Amino acid sequence: MLFGAIEAGGTKFVVAVGKENGEVVEKKTIPTTTPDETIREVEKFFANKQLTSVGVGTFGPVDLNSNRETYGFITTTPKVKWQNYNLLGELKEILHVPVAIDTDVNVAALGEKTLGAAKDVDSCLYLTVGTGIGGGAVMNGQTVKGLSHPEMGHVRVVKHPNDSFSGTCPFHGSCLEGMASGPAIKERWGESAEQLQDRNEVWEMEAYYIAQGLVSFMYTLSPEKMILGGGVMQQKQLFSLIHEEVYKLNANYYDLPILQKENIHSYIVPPELGSNAGIVGALLLAEQNV
Amino acid sequence: MLFGAIEAGGTKFVVAVGKENGEVVEKKTIPTTTPDETIREVEKFFANKQLTSVGVGTFGPVDLNSNRETYGFITTTPKVKWQNYNLLGELKEILHVPVAIDTDVNVAALGEKTLGAAKDVDSCLYLTVGTGIGGGAVMNGQTVKGLSHPEMGHVRVVKHPNDSFSGTCPFHGSCLEGMASGPAIKERWGESAEQLQDRNEVWEMEAYYIAQGLVSFMYTLSPEKMILGGGVMQQKQLFSLIHEEVYKLNANYYDLPILQKENIHSYIVPPELGSNAGIVGALLLAEQNV
Repeated sequence: MLFGAIEAGGTKFVVAVGKENGEVVEKKTIPTTTPDETIREVEKFFANKQLTSVGVGTFGPVDLNSNRETYGFITTTPKVKWQNYNLLGELKEILHVPVAIDTDVNVAALGEKTLGAAKDVDSCLYLTVGTGIGGGAVMNGQTVKGLSHPEMGHVRVVKHPNDSFSGTCPFHGSCLEGMASGPAIKERWGESAEQLQDRNEVWEMEAYYIAQGLVSFMYTLSPEKMILGGGVMQQKQLFSLIHEEVYKLNANYYDLPILQKENIHSYIVPPELGSNAGIVGALLLAEQNV
Repeated sequence: MLFGAIEAGGTKFVVAVGKENGEVVEKKTIPTTTPDETIREVEKFFANKQLTSVGVGTFGPVDLNSNRETYGFITTTPKVKWQNYNLLGELKEILHVPVAIDTDVNVAALGEKTLGAAKDVDSCLYLTVGTGIGGGAVMNGQTVKGLSHPEMGHVRVVKHPNDSFSGTCPFHGSCLEGMASGPAIKERWGESAEQLQDRNEVWEMEAYYIAQGLVSFMYTLSPEKMILGGGVMQQKQLFSLIHEEVYKLNANYYDLPILQKENIHSYIVPPELGSNAGIVGALLLAEQNV
């Protein structure tokens, strides 16, 4: 059986054909322009591919509640041409097979849970820290959604005592994304993450915020593994600072071996599938929804 | 088929026999004393009842990860006699049928999801605000757990600008439970919730904290309904204050009809099963685990 996978991003769509267990056979990158143009390229790629089903991991916000008429629509995105676009409907129209849709971070969590950093456990959270901050999770074998999809980047955080920055989020000001995304780092310190690599205070403050988010997610979902990806997390020094801070914030309340100082590096980890997490997760989503 | 249900609390155990769909046939309350004494009374109640399976909703912390040797043990509770007590193991030993275990709030969420305030949707969160603050949730038909069970009362909150209280939580100080539980209210204001009923500033501050927790849970789990129970929530004036505050904190980021000012009262609601949520949920848990 062959499955289709689509990773729909704001700058590019990655499309792939693969087999069971997330094995990619063929892959292509399509630039994200107008919906019409982009979807026409997607159609061309999948033409005559004899797929059983297709899985989609998309940028958002996207309506994932199948009880609503706008199920599968991209909703209030700042990408004007894609606002209120019926992504799921259009894909079904051109593909003629079952199409399952979820967020990019939820399918990445599914990929990492099944074949990556969380393959040995039953649940995980995947957080991407980059231009925005977004989170997905797999609990009880399925991605987490309901009212809508998670928007983990928008949880409120307590300000660092040395931080006078008011945050970049137009909705919440100083939520996690407002304080710790790539653009927040740049606006606070005047330079991009790469240029700030050697400034300890930058990364201590960054870890302070990310750790707050993680502890909040941990106490809410209790995932067995937390995976951190995205552009900002390429600053590898961040991991040990985050480990320290999560250990401190938990204060041994969850009194578990894996959260101890010497083990916590195996609880909060980088992705194993790297940039493939999304496309592999989308293949697995297709397979779940035959 | 008959099922058994146990709601294991710190002051009392409620035990019941019931049918499919949470219908209670017979119920009894047993005081929580020593494990030996209490479990002996449980054994007596269920003797010769011809049960198919038993569901347990228990106080915690309890180990819910079936990969660990301490699966089903009450762990670090302040109730000294119950520390490291193998609750699941002892119940299996006396009941001779499959026994499924979960937290009291997770089974309450399951009860409300199936037969109560969330019966028309597919997911819900249940938060109890009383002596402590605890939360459970049902997502994709199953209760949420993984590394351990959720400890939603311990998420960090931003302090109210007029609040100089440092919080009652011995682990985190000013986490949600530390700032908004019954004991926190009493310590901050010098009187109990009932005596403070007419003091607006008390309930505005209380709503400020509870709403922060709810918005954080909402952005993490995205449940279709949030249900608030427990002793403090008997102050019914709290609901409308919480609705206002959640509306304000969301700032229309989740741009959904149910979160608008005029509808949010149907998103954040009181329980419908009242004090039966736990025992009904435990029956349903038994039924899920035949």
